Formats: sequence, structure tokens, C-alpha cells
Amino acid sequence: MNDKKVKVAIIGAGTAGLSAFREVYKVSQDCLLINGGPYGTTCARVGCMPSKVLIQIANDYYHRISFKQQGIRNSHTLSLDKVEVMQYVRSLRDYYVRGVVKSIEKLGSKNLKGYARFVEPNVLDVEGVKIVADTIVIANGSSPIIPKPWQDYGDKIITTDDIFEQESINDDMAVIGAGAIGLELGQALSRMDVKVTMAEGTEFVGGLSDPIVNQYAVKTLNKELNLYLGHMANISHYDDRLELSCEDKKCAIKKALVAIGRKPNVKGLGLEQIGIELNEKGMPEVDYSTLKIKNVPIFMAGDVNGHRPILHEAADEGRIAGYNAVRSNPQCFKRRTPLSIAFTEPQIVFAGQRYTDIEKEPHIIGETTFDNQGRSRIMHKNKGIMRIYAKPQCGKLLGAEMMAPEAEYIGHLLAWAIQKELTVFEVLNMPFYHPTVLEGLRTAIRDLASKVKGPAPKLELAPCDGLPIDCFN
Amino acid sequence: MNDKKVKVAIIGAGTAGLSAFREVYKVSQDCLLINGGPYGTTCARVGCMPSKVLIQIANDYYHRISFKQQGIRNSHTLSLDKVEVMQYVRSLRDYYVRGVVKSIEKLGSKNLKGYARFVEPNVLDVEGVKIVADTIVIANGSSPIIPKPWQDYGDKIITTDDIFEQESINDDMAVIGAGAIGLELGQALSRMDVKVTMAEGTEFVGGLSDPIVNQYAVKTLNKELNLYLGHMANISHYDDRLELSCEDKKCAIKKALVAIGRKPNVKGLGLEQIGIELNEKGMPEVDYSTLKIKNVPIFMAGDVNGHRPILHEAADEGRIAGYNAVRSNPQCFKRRTPLSIAFTEPQIVFAGQRYTDIEKEPHIIGETTFDNQGRSRIMHKNKGIMRIYAKPQCGKLLGAEMMAPEAEYIGHLLAWAIQKELTVFEVLNMPFYHPTVLEGLRTAIRDLASKVKGPAPKLELAPCDGLPIDCFN
Repeated sequence: MNDKKVKVAIIGAGTAGLSAFREVYKVSQDCLLINGGPYGTTCARVGCMPSKVLIQIANDYYHRISFKQQGIRNSHTLSLDKVEVMQYVRSLRDYYVRGVVKSIEKLGSKNLKGYARFVEPNVLDVEGVKIVADTIVIANGSSPIIPKPWQDYGDKIITTDDIFEQESINDDMAVIGAGAIGLELGQALSRMDVKVTMAEGTEFVGGLSDPIVNQYAVKTLNKELNLYLGHMANISHYDDRLELSCEDKKCAIKKALVAIGRKPNVKGLGLEQIGIELNEKGMPEVDYSTLKIKNVPIFMAGDVNGHRPILHEAADEGRIAGYNAVRSNPQCFKRRTPLSIAFTEPQIVFAGQRYTDIEKEPHIIGETTFDNQGRSRIMHKNKGIMRIYAKPQCGKLLGAEMMAPEAEYIGHLLAWAIQKELTVFEVLNMPFYHPTVLEGLRTAIRDLASKVKGPAPKLELAPCDGLPIDCFN
Repeated sequence: MNDKKVKVAIIGAGTAGLSAFREVYKVSQDCLLINGGPYGTTCARVGCMPSKVLIQIANDYYHRISFKQQGIRNSHTLSLDKVEVMQYVRSLRDYYVRGVVKSIEKLGSKNLKGYARFVEPNVLDVEGVKIVADTIVIANGSSPIIPKPWQDYGDKIITTDDIFEQESINDDMAVIGAGAIGLELGQALSRMDVKVTMAEGTEFVGGLSDPIVNQYAVKTLNKELNLYLGHMANISHYDDRLELSCEDKKCAIKKALVAIGRKPNVKGLGLEQIGIELNEKGMPEVDYSTLKIKNVPIFMAGDVNGHRPILHEAADEGRIAGYNAVRSNPQCFKRRTPLSIAFTEPQIVFAGQRYTDIEKEPHIIGETTFDNQGRSRIMHKNKGIMRIYAKPQCGKLLGAEMMAPEAEYIGHLLAWAIQKELTVFEVLNMPFYHPTVLEGLRTAIRDLASKVKGPAPKLELAPCDGLPIDCFN
């Protein structure tokens, strides 16, 4: 390919990059999508999708423990063919990746394969090809972090980049890092009869910040995972195996899944060569409402900016960056209410503001557990705790943290209610069907309502000439 | 017990009656709860709860069909011990009933056991005891309908009153009526290796009114149930068994579950003796916003008024009736957005207005199927169709009908959005997490948004000085 001049160049054909490309394309077809690594998004290749498949299998297998009491016989004969498990995970993964790759193939010459490196703020070198662009969107994602010394341990150290490529699954596994990814995969492995030891440098798991929810989560997960919390893990050689040590605890391990986070792929971009101010992590200053880098016509979207590394946020950021890349005045965008889900069982979910956001502000907290929640018990999922935060005077919802059954759905209801700035009283006027797990959410909201310090809403005449149904107290 | 005078007498200790009692009790402790039949609510004894337990077992057992491809071996060895199944259903049912009964025992002398019959508009005869009350709340529920001729077939004809009492489960079963209850139990039985033949007088199943969703539902359910649609079923003697006939189709059956509806328990109340105007069904005229019967100090709440025979509505009606029973001017109440869920697989759900409500008004329809929906496929639940209705000019949501995976949660999100009068554009600004089944909902909403005839919302500056995130089109 010859040198080329385009209006917009987009680096990275992942979720953010593709989303930016589509947004640019609506206004100008003079654009180019540049991609270095494998095609297919992080989500489809090594993230959300294959992990959900593995989790689904692990849970389907695990739930046999409730079969006997339900009158389903012979559950003890079920076993896992771990080679087939991995084949199935990859077959579904390939299906999802194929969808992404197909959409890229349609781009034809608007797609350039190769790693891009900045020469000037509007000039890229793509493996020898020079691309000049009016604006550039950086959306080349992130990569799993492996501490330097561990990189010598070869295939005994794996990340999410490797785990789904394994032919089978080890009998024992250390998981380093108890964030969402570590917990999801660690629990799934444990439920597939793998002896899992999990080390986490902090006392908090799954990204929780509410100490009461965290305490519940630690206690619950510790029954399935051998948790080493509060100290940095160390891995060293031990005969032909490895040894995991964490303060005074240690054990021999065959393999370690390192899930201590992902680092933005900024290193090879050459940002240091084009006069942009970079912080100690090599990151430029990005305005998160426009996604523009200060003083240059460059935007950063998705995991590479390290801001909200979640698929639906990466898609939004691609759109924001793409929208602004073809307009002279970058426009700032209102973001969606934060929502985060770890697909453990029970699920760990945050919506809106976190506990650490509200703890120093005036707040009230509504709480419930799921031990006696009707439908949860029928589902054999009656474990969990939910804490919801609201403003003390008016009862306006602020946020929530929980480890709860079906929490992916509870989280959406709360995030939507928070985005519409609803009060606990307005939420109590909504239908809650019986018997659903959502009645547990209502219990927590009722608890919150009882703590509101301002006057409860008056029995006003509602628009249809009736009282709101839940205004009785 | 001697004759007694109270401020409020409540007939029926079910969901509506208990809810009315609590509401009255806040204002006046001079009240009496009268109950004729067994204690425990319809929901806990013979309705929502035991049916959900049976459905859970049936689905847990049924889902073994996806085990093999997931690498879980020996699923063919699983079998059902139907006696144990029924024991387990009853054990959980008893747990839920016990909770209700305990709350009633606490009432002591405020609870009177016996069937109540009106003598005057404010005088009841409770099996010989005379109760005079300023106001009376009728909340004595409903009973399954069995056509007269079928009542001679003894234990070959069962209803939801009997099914959970059975020691085991027949190998074949006719189910008469394809409403929510018939479908839920019919599918559960079928998934427990029972040969099910289901007859329904109309062409519509599960209470659907949208012909396209109904067509999908019929096609889907017919794979598990042998459906006879569109003609009234007849049951006659056939040797020592029964014969089910439905127009030109017929088959021999051992037992029939009759689920053609429930009738309000008005017959024994003696309403005809106190000068109230009754319609041809023996029902008085009730104002559904206050629940008062015209011209008399009597209220009707819950299934007995035949209005919204669903648990959370019965609870609301109890509160409305109780609230008004202790006040001189009955107040009308705004009801929650309608929401209805049949716990089949996929689930059948309605939220807001029905298709029959909107079909003659100006409307637009957004639609999606779930065949290729990402997470649904991982869950082996990628079947379903959803149709959402909105106003053509502004895109304000009106209602939805669907047969879809995880639809109990989709239904709540839609019902809440409808109650807050959101437009499709506002909904598209909400977070949809990846990968969830709720992304299927987004697909249908996007389809709706593309059909809105009025101007799409302008790129206004949002309150936080940013554009709404999904305002791109």
C-alpha cells in the first residue's frame, strides 16, 4: 500500500474502534481503520463471550448439587470431559469472533492491517506505510498485565489471552487477582472440580468498595475458593512446579492464571515522540467528556484510555470519539449511569455511585439479604446481600453495591432508576411481580424508604385522579 | 364466640384480606378477619409458589439436553423420582404456607374461623355468630372452574387445588385451557416425561393478544405439547378412562388438569339477599379505583372482584380497600402499570397496554427475535420474539407482548419505563450491559426508534453539560 492521506484514521478494530469508524463513516467516508493484532474484539476473542460460555458450563454442572433433593436421580454420575468443554467454549467463541471479522472484511481497502506508530500528531507509520490524517482516534485496547519476573515461567503462567486456548483444564490452578475476571474464572474453574487458590493484594474482592457487601462476598466465595487476601502474591520456582506465597501462606501450584488487571496498549504508539505531555504511566491527558487529548487532534476511546474498560462504555466512547473526530468543536457527552457486573454466583453488581463515593456525603442505606427470599429459594440461589444508597432528605437513589442472585437484572433496574433520578417512593410505586427475585430489591428499597428523614410524599392526587399506589406510610 | 360489633370486618385471610387487615389496623384496631376455608394464601397453597417449584424441577431436569454438547457427560442417566418430586414440591409449599399461617396466628381473637354470609349490608352471619360492622371488605378469593358434567369424573379431573396433593405424576395428562396456569403446568409436566395433550377453546395461548407473538408461541409450545386449539374441549367416558375430544381431534386420557379459569367466590356470600344489584354472573358493581360497591359500605378486593387476579394486584387492592374502609370518603388510587408473567420457557410476558388496546390507535411496533441473541445462545435459551408498542410521533412507550428468555426481567424494565412515560430515545440512553439478554430488548427498542415519525430528539445540552449518549441518529 502506498502512503495515504485521509480525514480520519482509527487505530484498533475492536469494540471502540469499530464503533468510532461507524460514527465517522456517517459523516465522511474518507476514513481508515488500522489494526495490528488479531481481528475480533477483546470481548469476543478473550473476554466477555468465552468467559460466559465457560461460566455457563461450570454452573450447569455445579447445580447438580440441588438435583437429589428435587427428586432428580443419578446426578452423581455426571462428569466433565474437560477437553470437550474447551472445544465447546472455542466453538462458540469462534462463532462470535466470526461475526466481528465478517463486518471488518466488508470494509475492504478502508481496513489496513499493521501496527500504527505516531511520527507526528497527524502522521502515522503503519509498518512502513505513511498515513496522514486530519484527526486520529486511538482505540487499540489493553493487554493483561504480567509482572516482569513471572514472564520467565513460560506456559505455567497464563492470562485470559491463553486460558481459552488450553486443550484441557488443570486439576489445580492459582488465580492471581480477585477482581471481576479473576473471580468469574476462578469460581468457574472451582465448579469444574479444579482446586483453586486465589490471591488478592487488597482485602476487597470483585471490585467491591462497600465493606459489608465485601465481607459477605469474601465469606461466600471462600467456600469455593481458597482465598489469600490482603497481601501481594509472589510466585517462585519450586522443583518443576511453582510456589505461590502470600505473606505467611503458601502452596505449590502447577499453573497460575494472572488476572491482576489490564494495561492500556500505549507503549508502541510512540506518543512520547510527538510532544504530548505524558504522565508517569505514559498516558496523555484525555478529557473524558469529549475523549480528546489536550492540544492535539487525537482522541482516545475504549480500554486504551483506562477510563471505563467495559464493553458498552467502549462502544459509547468509540461513538463519542468518532462523532468528535469529524467535527471542528469537540462536543462533550453525558455518560450513562455506571453499571458493572461480575458474573459470579451470586453476581457482584454496582450501579450508580459506589460506596466510596457516598460514604463521606450525607446518605442513608437500605439493606436486604436473600437467605429467605421466596423465589431465590426455589431457584436454589437464596444467598446474597444488597445495599442501596440514597439521599437522606428526599430519598433520591444514588447507587448500590450487591452480591445477589439475578443481580444483572436488579442492577439494570437500579441503574435506570438512578439515571431517571427516581426516589425510593417512586420506585415503590412500580410493579414488582410475584414470585420474582426482584421482590428482594423491593425489600431493600422499603428499608431505605423507612430511613428517609424528610417528609414522605404527601397523598397528592395523581395525574389520573388517583393516589400513587404505594404512598400509604 | 358471642355476637360482636366491630368497625371493619374483613372476609378472607388471603393476600388481599391480610393486606386490607394491615391497612385497617394502622388506623383502627377494632377489626376482625374472618376466614372460611384453609389458611394460607391461594398463592402459597395452590398457586404461584408450588407451581414455581414444580417448574424449577422440570426445567432443571429438561436442561440436561444441552449437557452433552457442553462437555457434561452421562446426562442420559438422569431420571426423575416423581414421588420425591411431589414430596419436595409440598415441602417447600408447606414452608411458604407456614409463614402465612404464623402471621395469622398472631392475630389471636381478631381472627374468626368460619364462612361469612351477609344478612344485611353491615351484618354478617359467620356460622351462627352475628358480626355487625361499619364497613366490610370482601376478599375471599376465587376457585378453579370445573364444568358441571366433568364434576362426575371423580379424581380423573383435577385442578390446581389437587395437583400438588398427588402422590406422583401420571405418565399422560390432558390439560384443558392454555392460559398462563395451563401452559406453565402443562410444559412442566411435559418436561418431566409426561405425555401432555392441551386443549384451548381459542386460537390464542398464554393470554397473548398479539397475533404474531401468539403464532410464535403456538409453534414453539407445540413442540412440547400436543396442542388442540380453537375449539371447546369435551371430556367423556371411554371404558375405564376418559376421552378428550376437540372438534375432529380426540384421544384417550387418564387424567385431565382443568385450568380454564377461576371464578370469584361470591356464591355463598348471600349478596343477593341484601338488595345489591348483581349482574348475570352474580357480581355487584365495583368502582375499581376505590374498590367500593355502589350504595353500600362494602368493598371488594383481590381475586373475588375478578379485576386483576394477580398477587401484587391483590395486595394493592387489599390496601386500597383497607384504606378506604376506615375513612369516610373513599379515595381513588392510581394503579401500577400492568405486568403479567407466565413462567413458561420462553416466558410469556405483557407490560403496559396490550396489542388489543393499541391496534386501533395510532402506533408503531418494534420487534426482535432471540435466535441470534448473544447471551441467550450461551444460556441455550435463544428462542423468542418481542413486540413493543409506542406512539408514532414521539416514541413514547405504550406496551409490549413477548415470548422471550428472561422475560420476567425484561417485563419489569418495560413496565417501569412505561410507568415513567419514557420514550424509546430515553430508554436508549440507559445502560445495557454486555453480554446480557437485555441487549435483545435494546434491539427491539432500536427498531422502534427507527420507526418514530416525529423528529428525533435534538442534540440538546443535557443537564450535566453533555449530550445524551444515544442521540446520534
